[in-house]
Amino acid sequence: MRKLFVVGMGAGSVGHLTLDAVDTLRAVDVVFVLEKAGAGKDELGRLRRELLERVVPEGTVRLEVAPSPERTIDEAAYGAGIEDWRRSRAAVVEELIVERMAEGEAGAFLVWGDPCLYDGTIQILEDLQGRGLDLAFEVVPGISSVQALTARHRVTLNRIGESVTITTARQLAATAPGTITNSVVMLDGRAAFKKLAESDLDIYWGAYLGTADEVLVAGPLRECAREIEQLIERERRRKGWIMDTYLLRRP
Amino acid sequence: MRKLFVVGMGAGSVGHLTLDAVDTLRAVDVVFVLEKAGAGKDELGRLRRELLERVVPEGTVRLEVAPSPERTIDEAAYGAGIEDWRRSRAAVVEELIVERMAEGEAGAFLVWGDPCLYDGTIQILEDLQGRGLDLAFEVVPGISSVQALTARHRVTLNRIGESVTITTARQLAATAPGTITNSVVMLDGRAAFKKLAESDLDIYWGAYLGTADEVLVAGPLRECAREIEQLIERERRRKGWIMDTYLLRRP
Repeated sequence: MRKLFVVGMGAGSVGHLTLDAVDTLRAVDVVFVLEKAGAGKDELGRLRRELLERVVPEGTVRLEVAPSPERTIDEAAYGAGIEDWRRSRAAVVEELIVERMAEGEAGAFLVWGDPCLYDGTIQILEDLQGRGLDLAFEVVPGISSVQALTARHRVTLNRIGESVTITTARQLAATAPGTITNSVVMLDGRAAFKKLAESDLDIYWGAYLGTADEVLVAGPLRECAREIEQLIERERRRKGWIMDTYLLRRP
Repeated sequence: MRKLFVVGMGAGSVGHLTLDAVDTLRAVDVVFVLEKAGAGKDELGRLRRELLERVVPEGTVRLEVAPSPERTIDEAAYGAGIEDWRRSRAAVVEELIVERMAEGEAGAFLVWGDPCLYDGTIQILEDLQGRGLDLAFEVVPGISSVQALTARHRVTLNRIGESVTITTARQLAATAPGTITNSVVMLDGRAAFKKLAESDLDIYWGAYLGTADEVLVAGPLRECAREIEQLIERERRRKGWIMDTYLLRRP
């Protein structure tokens, strides 16, 4: 039986790590990372190594990095593309577990943010269990970029009695602005909010949250949309990549 | 200028504390707690003291506990009741800051879960700033019971590309079951899910998350609703209080 942990590392800052995450990273033999291709790869890899160096004594844990297969963005074959992608990600994870972890060792998958929000590792481990791979796993929650965003803006996600929706840029584009009370968009990068720029909404926006490059903008969407759009363009040119998160709220 | 921190302590386990939260609790002179009246008060107070004892050296920080005014549950005067409640909570917080913190000291408000989700402390500090009290504050995010729930069930909040709604029992009661994809209900305690027991939904339910009394149930709502309802009744009789959180998901 292989013992694995899926560990949320927080949104970019070492200080986001929980005591449970630190204990887990110190207890395992090997830390696995699925590394997404593309711009930002080197910088995110460096942040991850720095974080490990800060909390795990040198030489006590192996770091095993494998490329995460890219998701095919084929709108016509959307469902089929996702199935292929899931299968190839599962194959990469299986190889990590079977080939790079010895009998009796414990391993941790280190994921950005919280493993329960827009991360596929849990699903992959379940798929592998379903296919008969003998493993057990636990999940260690982490601070998500949603929480880093609201904490840095010093706002709550919702006011008394209200709901919050966490969604994607794709889903936001299909949402009637009048139905939004509190909507958080993750992994946008293409300024989907600009379609709502004439609506009566406030925006709390942030990029590179928790890191030294963090940028924050807040205000009425009508007044801020253009500024944020230009910021996204400028930062993407400067750094080659962007990760942003924002809350849209009816005032 | 008074310096304050709003610190999320996680869902009940010391291991949920982040490194930032530990650093903040060690750096301040006084830790403030707004204590809700009613059953569970003593037990939650004990958990909080134990957590502080585990991470803060003895005698280095004062703990100042004040009763949190109760919210009037008057449906007819719902809006007015909330305004009164906000004002009386703000008065309690103002007294803590003005009377129990000396010039030049720093203080931290310790809150369950994440200060950005269903907690009023941030709003109160903003109200006090608006009324001219000279203070600055920072927010330290914490693991919410939503994250503790999904981590313990080893499920994600959403599947690829899907949205998640975090809501209250009150709002759930007004939701058409057919519109639910992933809905998380916090602070229910009255089994609002039972109204949806004939819908085709899965439930991932947990109470006292992160503590030694944690209880978890998962499965099709149709099959689990009665069991969970009985569990809630039994646990409330046994312990005198309950705090539960659950995820409803379309299979």
